Amino acid sequence: MAQINPTVGDLTGNAALVLAHAQAAADNGAHIVLFPEMVLTGYPVEDLALRLSFQEASRKSISVLAQELPPHIVSIVGYLDCVDGAPQNRVAVITDGKVAATYTKCHLPNYGVFDEYRNFVPGDQTLVVRIHGVDVGILICEDLWIDGGISSQLATRTPGLVLVPNGSPYERNKDDLRLALVQKRAREFNAPLIYVNMTGGQDDLVFDGDSIAVAASGAVIARAPQFEDGMALIDLDVEGATSTPDLVISSEPAILDRVLTPGIAHRLGDEEEVWNAIVVGLRDYVSKNGFEKVLIGLSGGIDSALVAALAVDALGADKVHGVAMPSKYSSQHSIEDAQALAANTGLGLRTVRIESMVDAYMREIKLTGLAEENLQARVRGTTLMAISNQENMLVLATGNKSELACGYSTLYGDAVGGYAPIKDIYKVDVWALSRWRNAVAIAAGDVPPIPQRSIDKEPSAELRPDQKDSDSLPEYEILDEVLRNYVDEDHGHDALVAMGFEDALVKRVIAMVDRAEYKRRQYPPGTKVSKRAFGKDRRLPMTSRWREL
Amino acid sequence: MAQINPTVGDLTGNAALVLAHAQAAADNGAHIVLFPEMVLTGYPVEDLALRLSFQEASRKSISVLAQELPPHIVSIVGYLDCVDGAPQNRVAVITDGKVAATYTKCHLPNYGVFDEYRNFVPGDQTLVVRIHGVDVGILICEDLWIDGGISSQLATRTPGLVLVPNGSPYERNKDDLRLALVQKRAREFNAPLIYVNMTGGQDDLVFDGDSIAVAASGAVIARAPQFEDGMALIDLDVEGATSTPDLVISSEPAILDRVLTPGIAHRLGDEEEVWNAIVVGLRDYVSKNGFEKVLIGLSGGIDSALVAALAVDALGADKVHGVAMPSKYSSQHSIEDAQALAANTGLGLRTVRIESMVDAYMREIKLTGLAEENLQARVRGTTLMAISNQENMLVLATGNKSELACGYSTLYGDAVGGYAPIKDIYKVDVWALSRWRNAVAIAAGDVPPIPQRSIDKEPSAELRPDQKDSDSLPEYEILDEVLRNYVDEDHGHDALVAMGFEDALVKRVIAMVDRAEYKRRQYPPGTKVSKRAFGKDRRLPMTSRWREL
Repeated sequence: MAQINPTVGDLTGNAALVLAHAQAAADNGAHIVLFPEMVLTGYPVEDLALRLSFQEASRKSISVLAQELPPHIVSIVGYLDCVDGAPQNRVAVITDGKVAATYTKCHLPNYGVFDEYRNFVPGDQTLVVRIHGVDVGILICEDLWIDGGISSQLATRTPGLVLVPNGSPYERNKDDLRLALVQKRAREFNAPLIYVNMTGGQDDLVFDGDSIAVAASGAVIARAPQFEDGMALIDLDVEGATSTPDLVISSEPAILDRVLTPGIAHRLGDEEEVWNAIVVGLRDYVSKNGFEKVLIGLSGGIDSALVAALAVDALGADKVHGVAMPSKYSSQHSIEDAQALAANTGLGLRTVRIESMVDAYMREIKLTGLAEENLQARVRGTTLMAISNQENMLVLATGNKSELACGYSTLYGDAVGGYAPIKDIYKVDVWALSRWRNAVAIAAGDVPPIPQRSIDKEPSAELRPDQKDSDSLPEYEILDEVLRNYVDEDHGHDALVAMGFEDALVKRVIAMVDRAEYKRRQYPPGTKVSKRAFGKDRRLPMTSRWREL
Repeated sequence: MAQINPTVGDLTGNAALVLAHAQAAADNGAHIVLFPEMVLTGYPVEDLALRLSFQEASRKSISVLAQELPPHIVSIVGYLDCVDGAPQNRVAVITDGKVAATYTKCHLPNYGVFDEYRNFVPGDQTLVVRIHGVDVGILICEDLWIDGGISSQLATRTPGLVLVPNGSPYERNKDDLRLALVQKRAREFNAPLIYVNMTGGQDDLVFDGDSIAVAASGAVIARAPQFEDGMALIDLDVEGATSTPDLVISSEPAILDRVLTPGIAHRLGDEEEVWNAIVVGLRDYVSKNGFEKVLIGLSGGIDSALVAALAVDALGADKVHGVAMPSKYSSQHSIEDAQALAANTGLGLRTVRIESMVDAYMREIKLTGLAEENLQARVRGTTLMAISNQENMLVLATGNKSELACGYSTLYGDAVGGYAPIKDIYKVDVWALSRWRNAVAIAAGDVPPIPQRSIDKEPSAELRPDQKDSDSLPEYEILDEVLRNYVDEDHGHDALVAMGFEDALVKRVIAMVDRAEYKRRQYPPGTKVSKRAFGKDRRLPMTSRWREL
């Protein structure tokens, strides 16, 4: 089980990664090495799948790779193919220097973050190949999830082992579904089933690995750690010659020359899992896009403190730079808390006072109220971008999902950035994650990164005297519950009221969310961790007069 | 043929629009009134289609509307239905106070800007209803385009008349395809065919109407003007009782009490068509989102001048406000040309000098080179947004497709705005449209809106002394041809070189385009006019190491 982290579009790099892992597998005596879905191209490639030059490059790359892979092992490698002009999501069964067989994904997800009907043409054929006398069936990701589809057809062919490469994005609380499904299908096949998923971040997605091997009984044989790259060598008890294979690769039984003790990785707790998801998503967005350093505006508040702590875990403190940008409305604790954060984590902090810039605008244009508040946020945004341009650092936006939902942010102000690590984290979870991370540090005898006062103090944008979030928003404990049900669960007004939320509150929250769609469209990407993240997971018109009543 | 402009989500307003037009049709003696696809909900509703509350509201609304519509006419009204939990794109055949029959769209487009596999479950049944003795078949939009699909099935039922409601977005040079298709299908059906399309703008789409009626021979009977709302009353020579209908609504033949002379609207020329598309797209984005006024940063250059001229045509000069924001690098003609534009069009112009704001930043942060250039653009962006917030005006971004493609713009600088009218217009077409609009004015004896010097002078961002676009970009005549082939046609490096473009140039342009994906993701929406607009028409990863070689 090669649980690895490819990069979209990097055919050369991904091929090298596959080659190194196949070689290591062969060196360790493996007979089959299974890679994740579309490992050669990275995943998802989106509309690159439609581009002829990319299709051809992928086809050529798989042929070259086939010649380079160790000949005496069977490598199962996902790639993009093009058959009679139709792009296909495929795996190649590679042995002895060539592609011996291919399998095309039959069920294409086209919901949530997936656009596979747009990008691929489905297959409709099962594949069974005999390897060391064992009849091995292959499915790809969604194929496993659909009842009565290609998985049922494969079951009628009674394979002795089923291999499933996946590109399955992390989603909070999704894991148990995976295991339950894998176990159910193994029992249906009455054969062991190996589920291999990729790791790493790709724009707003993060893949958590969590590869699983189960016996025909559904018993877990091995499970790989979440969010970690690596390879697991496992030994399976399989029955030979159970089917009529499409192709015989080898018939002589495989002999195991030693005892393997596969691991069943410790499952992460909820906060730890989410923390890792964001850390990996951020780390990979930064590194895969060629950045080295990130820049964060530090207000002394909890959102920017959390983003900074995540960035330090992802990149190391020497790669994380903070800027405090106090204005005349900033409280004394703002700067103190930013300094405490810097001291706790070791990130570099500088201060740029924004008053003279704000004053310069105010002398040229007459601004009052919200326009003046937004001006301060935009001066901060411009300051961050200026430093970013000057010193080549990626700006991280610090908005959370509650703010993004309600439009409680300033376009081109606090919304600036190349990546927004906590855009899918509701405010209540911002606090929970912060407390969790500090507790982990304390348990380890380390300094907790996030200043306790940043956690405890009342949230404020500090754009006017004595401003509090609660002037504009309902209390977060209630707000986030309404949002979760409206955004993540897609419940309408009546359903929310039936759940017991106050009618006026529901109307107010929904109106805020609907009105802010245009702001979200211009917001940077960030790691999806929820069932429904803002972005390609939730596609709504900006121009819409639909109002939940 | 009711060629009208619904608003997404506005069930009440759209129902009123349908009602008024059905009443007018009945008053004028029509027997059938045909509305565009999903006219009741507006189109496209995107993920609203998946929301239970919206599905229920649409279902309820069509029932209520059925009771209100004139009873003695047959109204064909598109709406969103939900059948056993599956959202469907449907039309209701309404007469005598109720929904007599429904037809569900069978072929769902899922390419380009369309996501219909995501949002709907397809139907699989033809519908033929007898109206005044004529057997009328119905198809919806994409159903008409697919060879050998539901259209062929309907043809075997030999309808005497085929009605097709559409939500077909404008695309340059697309129109002739529509007519050719409508004619081909009419001949296949051996029956007259009526194609009704909506008008109006919806986020980045604009619908151009262009409704068509053809005889069984394919001869054009009537064609509605592009981009104009209205209704055409047409008289068709149809054969009765040609099929076995699913439902008989009425059998007595319809008698025409007078002679109708339907019009065949003048087809717009290329520039006029594109101009109208942008004007309607902009007008509807502004009005449907509840804005009254727009604000444009006027540099004296051609892009902002064109956007201003378009805005004046869309909204009237009194709704268009310009701001000149000279810096120390601005040439004298910058401000003069902005003033000339204001004088020519009557838009309101003010001047805000940005030097003191720029200086304030420069005193606080050390900036050089590109960082300093970007700072000026961002001070302008912040200034525009400040005025926008203070005076409640929608900022229009003035970037063209060439800039957007190459990333030749500053995030949160010149890229700020709620709408970007010319984001799908290459620079060479910016000039062509400007010349065309001026020529129209001259021909009409009016003052040409765009100062000749804005058209003639060499493009410059004026962010450093003597800067020219050509310092950073290839000449636009060549650049735009490479871009059109790379972006709109999806040709890769090798294909471009084979077309005769210089290898180094192709590599340079492609690298610029690929690198700028993250900028485009944060760019405002704007009217799609090309085969492939940036936005949901072209979905590429930001994180990608794919490089066309």
